[in-house]
Amino acid sequence: MRIGVLGTGVVGRTITDKLRELGHDVLVGSRSAGDDAVPFADAATHGELVFNCTNGNASLDALHAAGEENLAGKVLVDVANALDFSQGSPPLVGVTTGGSLGEQIQLAFPETKVVKALNTVSANVMVDPSSVPGEHEIFVCGNDAEAKAQVIDLLQSFGWPAEHVLDLGEIASARGQEAYVALWVQLMGVVGSPTFNIHVAR
Amino acid sequence: MRIGVLGTGVVGRTITDKLRELGHDVLVGSRSAGDDAVPFADAATHGELVFNCTNGNASLDALHAAGEENLAGKVLVDVANALDFSQGSPPLVGVTTGGSLGEQIQLAFPETKVVKALNTVSANVMVDPSSVPGEHEIFVCGNDAEAKAQVIDLLQSFGWPAEHVLDLGEIASARGQEAYVALWVQLMGVVGSPTFNIHVAR
Repeated sequence: MRIGVLGTGVVGRTITDKLRELGHDVLVGSRSAGDDAVPFADAATHGELVFNCTNGNASLDALHAAGEENLAGKVLVDVANALDFSQGSPPLVGVTTGGSLGEQIQLAFPETKVVKALNTVSANVMVDPSSVPGEHEIFVCGNDAEAKAQVIDLLQSFGWPAEHVLDLGEIASARGQEAYVALWVQLMGVVGSPTFNIHVAR
Repeated sequence: MRIGVLGTGVVGRTITDKLRELGHDVLVGSRSAGDDAVPFADAATHGELVFNCTNGNASLDALHAAGEENLAGKVLVDVANALDFSQGSPPLVGVTTGGSLGEQIQLAFPETKVVKALNTVSANVMVDPSSVPGEHEIFVCGNDAEAKAQVIDLLQSFGWPAEHVLDLGEIASARGQEAYVALWVQLMGVVGSPTFNIHVAR
């Protein structure tokens, strides 16, 4: 599959490596092209499906640079978190804007099918869930059922068992997926490593 | 031990029942006394330790009614969540105020030792952790180590094993404990019951 990955940070690079390992044809987009990266718009145009792995505080700008027309009709997997450290750490999440990043992206790009996913674990866990022992879950949400099904297929190819992918509903549920990251930051401190995840015991 | 419980909702009643079952001398405080409840100030005066089980959006008012002088020098276990449904459900958490409720309470009552605890599970799970099968965790945070140790003792008497009580640090960590509740609300929908909790797989 042709996939565009926006963002050249650890998350973007880790997802790109995994996608290429799985045989996908990936173009990586960045603000300043070069070093194995093309401009955002080229990566978006290339992808039948696009990952947003940019810093959440700059994601809307990056996506506008990628181009509304280049993202129209496509699935956008939003992996980003907009952490607000203006009041120190632990960060506040979604505070400056009054809503989740996932919803804002869906609102700004109404013809794109936004699916929030993978933002609740560190990059290494995203593509290697078995690095965390035992049962644990990954969350998805979005307004388009087919787009979610396509993303869930991708997650399964990353190693996430179907029964541990929890569909939280429409894109408004990104509020919960993103808010949790404030707790994640603290748990990382307690655990002493980003290689952990939560399991819903029930 | 003499304990004051502020709030007569499900959480306040459930915690009161458990504390009385454990032999504590509990007075329940409410805005309008009567029905087994006394005014907030009387419950606060009675308690060597006080639980805040009021609605988070009204907690500061309730605590001011309880009286700064009646809470001074005491441990206040803050169980409350301030959920903001102004932008629909799932709720936003801590958005209207820019910080966590736990921090705001600590700031407004500097002589009280605020410990955030139990706000991440439903009332029945708070006092009966074994109602959720398997391993799962409860979180505490606060600025005073002795106060936290006292609360952790109480949690153990509720049935929380010491190794499943995670100390997240100072009261600023209430940001994470409270933010998680936005995800909790959605997980409740997926699980179909409030009788669940999260386990940190690592």
